[in-house]
Amino acid sequence: MKAKIKIWLEKDGKQLLGEGRIRLLKTIEDKGSLKKAVEKLGYSYRYAWGIIRKLEKRMEKKLIISHKGGAHGGDSRLTEYGKKLIEKFDKYKEEIKQENEKIFRRYFKDDEF
Amino acid sequence: MKAKIKIWLEKDGKQLLGEGRIRLLKTIEDKGSLKKAVEKLGYSYRYAWGIIRKLEKRMEKKLIISHKGGAHGGDSRLTEYGKKLIEKFDKYKEEIKQENEKIFRRYFKDDEF
Repeated sequence: MKAKIKIWLEKDGKQLLGEGRIRLLKTIEDKGSLKKAVEKLGYSYRYAWGIIRKLEKRMEKKLIISHKGGAHGGDSRLTEYGKKLIEKFDKYKEEIKQENEKIFRRYFKDDEF
Repeated sequence: MKAKIKIWLEKDGKQLLGEGRIRLLKTIEDKGSLKKAVEKLGYSYRYAWGIIRKLEKRMEKKLIISHKGGAHGGDSRLTEYGKKLIEKFDKYKEEIKQENEKIFRRYFKDDEF
């Protein structure tokens, strides 16, 4: 048996940041392009661009910077803040997952199911 | 901003126990009847009974005991094992939630969003 966990951040009762958005940001950074990132993830460009814009607005921070051809064309990179954000989210996720295993084992160590 | 968390237990890659099933067990105990529990939760009797049976099978433990009129009629109570299970799940959930708050605050204390 395994203990599973899902984490996300909410603002004003609505989801702000979860694993899907983190994956999008990571893929943009990895591919160096929003266009290539959406191709890999199977999102529509419009949808992904909407997510980023909304996220930036709600966080009041720039997360990606687009060069040459603007948002609809050329390269996109994460801002320093964007990079730090995914780094922190990853570390936070890793820690809570480990903690989850520990607490689960403590309570359910005698259960064989 | 708030850190949210969802936990559940899996066996063989499939969900075994999560908050919905725990709620069903608690309501059975609270009402002393599976019939009254499903009325409160808005489940069909057949659905709820199927959940309990499947859960007992996969855990290889009895979770509820039905008296008078059998499963489809009279009273239903949790077994000692069933009671301990929800108690452990609740404590486990409480601990992991507190831990989540702590870890979240540590990583995101400087973020104002």
